[in-house]
Amino acid sequence: MTCTAALKSPPLAVPFDQWILECGTRFDEAAQRTLPCADAVPTRLHQAMRYAVLDGGKRVRPLLVYAAGDVTDAESDACDRAALAVEFVHAYSLVHDDMPCMDNDVLRRGKPTVHVEFDEATAMLAGDALQAEAFKVLADGALPASQTAALIRELAHASSTAGMCGGQAIDLAAVGTTPTIAELERMHRMKTGALLRAAVLMGALSGRASLLTECTREALGQYGDAIGLAFQIVDDLLDVEASTAELGKTAGKDAEQHKPTYVSLLGAQAARAWSLRLRAQALQAIDGVGNSARLRDLADFVVCRKS
Amino acid sequence: MTCTAALKSPPLAVPFDQWILECGTRFDEAAQRTLPCADAVPTRLHQAMRYAVLDGGKRVRPLLVYAAGDVTDAESDACDRAALAVEFVHAYSLVHDDMPCMDNDVLRRGKPTVHVEFDEATAMLAGDALQAEAFKVLADGALPASQTAALIRELAHASSTAGMCGGQAIDLAAVGTTPTIAELERMHRMKTGALLRAAVLMGALSGRASLLTECTREALGQYGDAIGLAFQIVDDLLDVEASTAELGKTAGKDAEQHKPTYVSLLGAQAARAWSLRLRAQALQAIDGVGNSARLRDLADFVVCRKS
Repeated sequence: MTCTAALKSPPLAVPFDQWILECGTRFDEAAQRTLPCADAVPTRLHQAMRYAVLDGGKRVRPLLVYAAGDVTDAESDACDRAALAVEFVHAYSLVHDDMPCMDNDVLRRGKPTVHVEFDEATAMLAGDALQAEAFKVLADGALPASQTAALIRELAHASSTAGMCGGQAIDLAAVGTTPTIAELERMHRMKTGALLRAAVLMGALSGRASLLTECTREALGQYGDAIGLAFQIVDDLLDVEASTAELGKTAGKDAEQHKPTYVSLLGAQAARAWSLRLRAQALQAIDGVGNSARLRDLADFVVCRKS
Repeated sequence: MTCTAALKSPPLAVPFDQWILECGTRFDEAAQRTLPCADAVPTRLHQAMRYAVLDGGKRVRPLLVYAAGDVTDAESDACDRAALAVEFVHAYSLVHDDMPCMDNDVLRRGKPTVHVEFDEATAMLAGDALQAEAFKVLADGALPASQTAALIRELAHASSTAGMCGGQAIDLAAVGTTPTIAELERMHRMKTGALLRAAVLMGALSGRASLLTECTREALGQYGDAIGLAFQIVDDLLDVEASTAELGKTAGKDAEQHKPTYVSLLGAQAARAWSLRLRAQALQAIDGVGNSARLRDLADFVVCRKS
């Protein structure tokens, strides 16, 4: 992305590791305030929603929102709402994917999955309610209506059958088959990539419209696409290379369930190399985008993570 | 509602029965165009979503949208989008409620339920994707952003744990118990009433803001509340009095599942009398609202329906 002269980003006062911790705290506080109270009726449903969102997760999507918000000088409240919305959608997808009729998993973020800790009906409803909550938190803000509508459009498309839900359906149908790399890539661009890309774009949409030129938007989309696919390749690598304790979810599930992955199709070495090429593509895409230092850090974070 | 002088509604050119048929056709054509194509990948998911929405249902919520749209002289496209959104949410809730971990039902709208016709994973995903599609169809319109945001806010609240999802959770917890009438009413106002009320308000929000005064909005909300509760009482009556063939869904399920209902708590006669009082309340609420003839017809339709 070289359509504007590279803007000089100011030096970042806070080291990346500390920024991640601060963002995590900021996100958790916002989620604590926003999610329905655990002691309000229906208590069990509210407890399950809070269980699914709080106390865990790498918060990659909120981090992408906050980092992209820097690019357009986003207001704190708008950014928090975008981060909550995208993470609520992510959390609901995990709750439903873990259920017996889908991946049937019992461990997530180092804790029993929602249907194990509560029950299947509560897990289904908690997922449903989290999706509603995602759109509610965007619609309830004091943001200009045009910004609200744009954020919701981005999230709805990423969550639809053209995005996350569609990718999950293709994933289910692929179990036991041997797709081509192109087919696997398409599936993951939908299942995981669409929401990660949306996180980046929603962060940028949370800020000043005048700073989000068509060119910057295009660059951020390319960055989001590359990071989204890299994230999934690393996920596949970690499923093979890391332990259940490190991941906080059951390791080795892909092979056990005969799920085609980048590792099973390409081998670990080629998959690792591909993730590094995608990191380079992501960085190149935002080369001329101002105030993108955190996005650059996050490209490394996504590719080099150990869990 | 007597805060404005009663406006004289123009005589309606089309009889009510014909209007219902025309609205049904209009809705089905809009849904056909809007839902993802059945032959697009992921085909099975798209087929399940279309199966859940098309070819069936009384379309009470779309009818309420169209009727309330008359009050504010709503544009056709805006009204269609509101009708689609609210019916997609209703359809997703039926798909999920019918699943084995919830009500475990095999018949809906005279057809096998989605998880029976397809499978549980596809049913869960189809419900998830229909919810996303509901917000997408609102966000994708060419409506003014303020109108889009208001419609989405209404739908998100009605779908949340303060509305439909919360009511369903309370309903599940109430199986085998004997709640008070007040508790049962609260549950149904959330589970069924919130979305019916939202349908009325979203129809009105689809039109000219200048015609939706605070007073008219209040009146329509009261109408929606009364109609929403009456709808559920009649549902409980029909579960006892009508046959499976008439209903297109399994009759007698409430008693079989030991679900508390208005009929089990009050008896059929008192329940019927209450539904008639609610109809009168609904009509009184919109007494001074102009162009509300279809809403008046619908109050009768909801209370006197046989399926």
